[in-house]
Amino acid sequence: MLIVPERDIADLITRKAAFDAVEKVFAAMASGAAYNFPVVRESLGHEDALYGFKGGFDRAGLMLGLKAGGYWPNNLEKRGLINHQSTVFLFDPDTGKPTAMVGGNLLTALRTAAASAVSIKHLARPDASVIGMIGAGHQATFQLRAALEQRPFKKVIGWNYHPEMLPNIEKIAAEAGLRFEAVDLPGMGEADVIISITSAFAPSLMADHVSSGTHIACMGTDTKGKQEVEAALLARARVFTDEVTQSITIGEAQHAVAQGLLAESDIVRLGSVINGSDQGRTSDTQITLFDGTGVGLQDLAVAAAVVDLAVENGLAIEVDF
Amino acid sequence: MLIVPERDIADLITRKAAFDAVEKVFAAMASGAAYNFPVVRESLGHEDALYGFKGGFDRAGLMLGLKAGGYWPNNLEKRGLINHQSTVFLFDPDTGKPTAMVGGNLLTALRTAAASAVSIKHLARPDASVIGMIGAGHQATFQLRAALEQRPFKKVIGWNYHPEMLPNIEKIAAEAGLRFEAVDLPGMGEADVIISITSAFAPSLMADHVSSGTHIACMGTDTKGKQEVEAALLARARVFTDEVTQSITIGEAQHAVAQGLLAESDIVRLGSVINGSDQGRTSDTQITLFDGTGVGLQDLAVAAAVVDLAVENGLAIEVDF
Repeated sequence: MLIVPERDIADLITRKAAFDAVEKVFAAMASGAAYNFPVVRESLGHEDALYGFKGGFDRAGLMLGLKAGGYWPNNLEKRGLINHQSTVFLFDPDTGKPTAMVGGNLLTALRTAAASAVSIKHLARPDASVIGMIGAGHQATFQLRAALEQRPFKKVIGWNYHPEMLPNIEKIAAEAGLRFEAVDLPGMGEADVIISITSAFAPSLMADHVSSGTHIACMGTDTKGKQEVEAALLARARVFTDEVTQSITIGEAQHAVAQGLLAESDIVRLGSVINGSDQGRTSDTQITLFDGTGVGLQDLAVAAAVVDLAVENGLAIEVDF
Repeated sequence: MLIVPERDIADLITRKAAFDAVEKVFAAMASGAAYNFPVVRESLGHEDALYGFKGGFDRAGLMLGLKAGGYWPNNLEKRGLINHQSTVFLFDPDTGKPTAMVGGNLLTALRTAAASAVSIKHLARPDASVIGMIGAGHQATFQLRAALEQRPFKKVIGWNYHPEMLPNIEKIAAEAGLRFEAVDLPGMGEADVIISITSAFAPSLMADHVSSGTHIACMGTDTKGKQEVEAALLARARVFTDEVTQSITIGEAQHAVAQGLLAESDIVRLGSVINGSDQGRTSDTQITLFDGTGVGLQDLAVAAAVVDLAVENGLAIEVDF
């Protein structure tokens, strides 16, 4: 079997490879060729850690396996390690034997960024020129970088609960030669695309902060109780997601569905738009909203891409297992 | 991290090491120091394979991780590989980083055998002299070998739906210098200990086939619908298990509980007997029955033992992950 350690991932994977892998696996999920397994997520009662498994199988891409790991909030302070720790394990679907083990930390950041970028490609207006960021942490920089490749944006605007973090995303805008402006939440009305990437438990972005024709990617809500945008915004929008069952239970749509503002049957899989079986945005004035909950198949897809690149570049460690 | 391939396991693990690891982790489960995560088990719709994850965390032994794998029924015929394929992954509970990857095929057989042996140590009458086997497949040989170390047995009796397989267990008896006798099911009345290890969906062993004072280990039922012994036998016995929630849903007790013959609260964790918080067998005439459903922590425990042995013996492959 092949091993690709975390330290080699940054030199191997490209944003394009992550984007292509995620786009393809979203399409496979919508066509029924790929599915995610129930998620295991456990609060260990040790080091305040959250740990679990996200697995799946893609019959089309012949990918089987899981991402195992979680969140160790004391890692950085106590040990100088990053708090999110994960590893992807791939198996041969023909035999059940393990085929690869891949560091999953950077991959998780890239596949999450790729998901909102895929949603922008397929749902944002072609003439989108202003992108708004809600959230300015480490992951926000990944989301913005990937998003900027999808449309010829002219300006980045940003809001963060802690404004002193905004330079994180201003830097990414500057790298791309774009103007950056800090705004208040009503100022998001200027944006044609908004990415929300926070871990909030109360909405920041309200329905009346958003102009018609905007595409919004809600990428932060992955747990029961979390919420980034007002539920009424989902009622105003055409809503898309990676995985409907997650969207209504742990994703952004959980609140709108619980309040009766949105029906499960109103939510469209982004893969159906990629496949062409759903038309996606139906007018220039429609608000589209992507509820990105994060699925194991995204992890398997980018890990499989990295293994191919590691083999091509002679960087895969081979172990006779 | 350390890697111990399947090919090295047989030379490293001993039945005693597997027994000690399983006994210890059963005790930790009963004391509340260790728990198993929800099991993921998926029928892939590819190669008729069953695949999934069994994870857990032992705060006392500082073991965290999972066994991933399953059953590929065409492996042997198509590819000369064994049909059960599994791999154990261990993580550092302090940081979330992977620490070891261990071949899980032989370990699964040994930990399953260790579980019934642990139940015999703690529940069978000290003077037990006849052991009865129901089932004579590959796994039955592991169960019998481990059981024979727990009491000074004088004789092995056996029954199998396909009698032509009985020589498998006769051979194990002969190795131990013991007489073997094929019996019909009522003939099991002679046994002081019975191990049932089949994958049947209807009971073989009936309540009136069993003499008072017998200890029975039901090791084959791990799925909704499977059944090895008559539900009325559980009503006649004091019932023990590894994991109560599994026992009543996918274990042997599922039928007795569904029929109202046994209450969940009647089922005792074997670990409580090991810990001394339950007295176990209460009389020489009582029937004791262990419902061994199989839990992820057993796999983690034997895998951790193997990693220690591999390090001691210089056989662990170290990879800078």
